[in-house]
Amino acid sequence: MTARPHEIAPRTGVAFTLDAGQSLTVIDPCGQQVADLLAYARDDVREIISGGRTLDYQSKLFLTTGDTLWSNRSRPMLVIEADDVGRHDFLLTPCSRETFEIIYGDKDPHRGCFGNLAAALEPYGIAPDTIPTAFNVFMNVTVAGDGTLAVKPPLSKAGDSIVFRARMPLIIGLTACSALQSNNGSFKPIHYRID
Amino acid sequence: MTARPHEIAPRTGVAFTLDAGQSLTVIDPCGQQVADLLAYARDDVREIISGGRTLDYQSKLFLTTGDTLWSNRSRPMLVIEADDVGRHDFLLTPCSRETFEIIYGDKDPHRGCFGNLAAALEPYGIAPDTIPTAFNVFMNVTVAGDGTLAVKPPLSKAGDSIVFRARMPLIIGLTACSALQSNNGSFKPIHYRID
Repeated sequence: MTARPHEIAPRTGVAFTLDAGQSLTVIDPCGQQVADLLAYARDDVREIISGGRTLDYQSKLFLTTGDTLWSNRSRPMLVIEADDVGRHDFLLTPCSRETFEIIYGDKDPHRGCFGNLAAALEPYGIAPDTIPTAFNVFMNVTVAGDGTLAVKPPLSKAGDSIVFRARMPLIIGLTACSALQSNNGSFKPIHYRID
Repeated sequence: MTARPHEIAPRTGVAFTLDAGQSLTVIDPCGQQVADLLAYARDDVREIISGGRTLDYQSKLFLTTGDTLWSNRSRPMLVIEADDVGRHDFLLTPCSRETFEIIYGDKDPHRGCFGNLAAALEPYGIAPDTIPTAFNVFMNVTVAGDGTLAVKPPLSKAGDSIVFRARMPLIIGLTACSALQSNNGSFKPIHYRID
């Protein structure tokens, strides 16, 4: 019997550890909700998930079943074992106070995924400046022929999930994303399960 | 009269400082040669050039004249003031021992742009783990409709250049790239000038 999933409330984030060999299932319970995923090596938090290394070794922008997420030291951190959606990327950074100021013009901006991740990861000795571009789970960014980027509604439907297998002991940061545009205009929870 | 440019020998790299307001011209003297560019804030080297933040704020993969390169703290580091080529990106990471082992199968791999940058930046107190995806000057990566990436010969011709203006005091890392595929099969120098 599978345990009930944990819930990440709208516009919040959490951090937790994962042992090598454990799986992490990230679920979109309502549909069209993005989750930002970070990974740090538990043995040395200077080893960090790297979008650039992953793009290098996988030679693609959109990662799915069978693809590996690599660290800045060129070691496999997570492997995608199952994926209902097929649209996730490493393109845009976690939304932040500055994102909301610069892109949305907000006067009293939310701390965003960046602030949520920084707060959740702080007890593990992880400094905000070391937060890289996250793996943007369920995010739907399109690339035009000239390289123009556009943030579109996620393709995930209620109950869709993606399953990762840890290849080393990890600290994971995970959010229910706080940016209106990324989530088709509303803020919803994210569920996750560790098996 | 303009001073003679500095030369970066094939498969090597350098680091130097730039004052706020100074310009950096990166020149491809032979054509079809990539240069990896990094920037760190001189006042605090934990503030680092960020491809993710730049993609966010510029909403495009390929940066050119008028575009700003942003830091991980969402501050402008460099502005592109002139550009003969129009094809540069933040997609793939600096080539490294691991790149040559994993992608090329080399038995005795070169340390690559990553090793060259790490060595050049070490006197400034910059640790290898904090080397992010570089701004890949003159690199020509194409993105297919399904997100597949391909490394193509650079579009730069002999003498082509790109000019950056520093928006804060910076430490710059700069290479003549060491990966065969990125440079259409041969290793050439890079020139640069500070004005």
